[in-house]
Amino acid sequence: MPQISKIKRLAIIGVGLIGGSVARALRAKGLVDEIVGCGRSPDNLKQAQSLGIIDRYTASAVEAAQGADLVLLAVPVSAIADVYAVIAPVLRADAVVTDAGSTKGSVIRDLRARMGQLPPRFVPGHPIAGTEKSGAAASFVELFESRRVILTPEPETDPGAAAVVRQLWETCGARVTEMSAAHHDEVLAATSHLPHLLAFALVDTLAGMEERREIFTYAAGGFRDFTRIASSHPEMWADICAANAPALLEALTGLETTLARLRSAISVQDSQAVVACFTRAKAARDRFAALIGNGNDLSKAQE
Amino acid sequence: MPQISKIKRLAIIGVGLIGGSVARALRAKGLVDEIVGCGRSPDNLKQAQSLGIIDRYTASAVEAAQGADLVLLAVPVSAIADVYAVIAPVLRADAVVTDAGSTKGSVIRDLRARMGQLPPRFVPGHPIAGTEKSGAAASFVELFESRRVILTPEPETDPGAAAVVRQLWETCGARVTEMSAAHHDEVLAATSHLPHLLAFALVDTLAGMEERREIFTYAAGGFRDFTRIASSHPEMWADICAANAPALLEALTGLETTLARLRSAISVQDSQAVVACFTRAKAARDRFAALIGNGNDLSKAQE
Repeated sequence: MPQISKIKRLAIIGVGLIGGSVARALRAKGLVDEIVGCGRSPDNLKQAQSLGIIDRYTASAVEAAQGADLVLLAVPVSAIADVYAVIAPVLRADAVVTDAGSTKGSVIRDLRARMGQLPPRFVPGHPIAGTEKSGAAASFVELFESRRVILTPEPETDPGAAAVVRQLWETCGARVTEMSAAHHDEVLAATSHLPHLLAFALVDTLAGMEERREIFTYAAGGFRDFTRIASSHPEMWADICAANAPALLEALTGLETTLARLRSAISVQDSQAVVACFTRAKAARDRFAALIGNGNDLSKAQE
Repeated sequence: MPQISKIKRLAIIGVGLIGGSVARALRAKGLVDEIVGCGRSPDNLKQAQSLGIIDRYTASAVEAAQGADLVLLAVPVSAIADVYAVIAPVLRADAVVTDAGSTKGSVIRDLRARMGQLPPRFVPGHPIAGTEKSGAAASFVELFESRRVILTPEPETDPGAAAVVRQLWETCGARVTEMSAAHHDEVLAATSHLPHLLAFALVDTLAGMEERREIFTYAAGGFRDFTRIASSHPEMWADICAANAPALLEALTGLETTLARLRSAISVQDSQAVVACFTRAKAARDRFAALIGNGNDLSKAQE
């Protein structure tokens, strides 16, 4: 791996779980001289500074981006193009900008609409890592260790800028893949956005039944794991659902088709059909668990 | 807590995760003299014996139940009444029988149909504990530690028999609650059966997309946790879905209503409605996590 030249000034717009963890990882590797944080919550930024995650902070994205050689936009996907437009006038000509948004088609589309073109030194990216926690205090240095990062450069993207961003994430310990934004959005709709939608929907449905039935009292480990992602940031996930609506709703349609088939099989007591579906699912889930390693051994979680 | 008298002979029909863990826990507490295992797989029974979980085994439920003072039926819910009918002629008059089935209405209904009445010394029970693993080798002594066990005695159930079963589970470390079978089935449909159905359905849907898209390659911790229960035993869960079909399909209808509302809100970009649903869900999930303790801290699981 060719050595990435040291970053003199890294601007992180949005010092949350992702932005904070990037800062921690790059600092741990000694790759960066100065980290400037920017965000909407002074308390969060103050805490990030006192934890040593960032060197200084400002409420102004313009001030943060000024003189930076690398800018990470770790803000909600719907805000990325707006923030880019604000900082564009002060960006150094050689500055590289990237984002950490969970959707890529919408970010590219918004930037084209906002800027008239996709800026060549903007590299669309998505680290597939996170927890249900938010804020700088939730960040940790190993968040990206062995995780996937997907970059979705477009034809106009500067290959040199893409190489810088690739090495940024590899320095954080991640495995970087490139694919089209459309492919990214379809894959993430299925494996991330739809599960989040389902977890939120299930817990909201049950919360509506809860008062008279104390149902959560009798829920256990299976439910806890299944619904963990329903503790995620509501606004951030509403934003993601909106940004990736077509792919998400198509994945939802696929699931609804399977559920309708299961409902009818259960209704007519066609246990063969139910077993066949569950057996295919178990085989796929077991393959997935083998693929990612310790998938089933995280805990002796209870049903 | 009054002292339960020592069990001279415990018969466990179905030495899997649940039956094996009961055996381990009771043995660890010195509550039982002899444990006889019975099941369909000689390999599993042999392994259970060599692991010291059971003292001896037989393929005959009649032989296992003969002379036992306590019989645990840890077989699929659809088989419980059949097994009871087989052993009924040889049961000691003072023997207590209980089950560990995940549905209770169906077990009681099947027994009434099969035996002409609900046997007074049969105590319907359900330990809300388990993992996605199966078989005696997956059993462990702490499985029921601090977990809930629900008993659903009927008017004809012998209070003495119910007391024995309560103390059996309390000895295993569980917290025992009584409620009606209908309430049990409604609560478990919502918090266990529906999540399993969804996890199986989602993974099967994605497996159908998988070949051309390698989607599992880019799935991470959120997906792993959400789908862990899709690695559960297909036949056992098909059986549970069939046995609790009315409550399960009603819970599914509730979820589908929420999903339809979310789909329409996402389609018309009504982000307020989406945020409101996600916010209610997060609040309920966070309350649940607080309720069960370490709900969010099992792992630094990745999105």
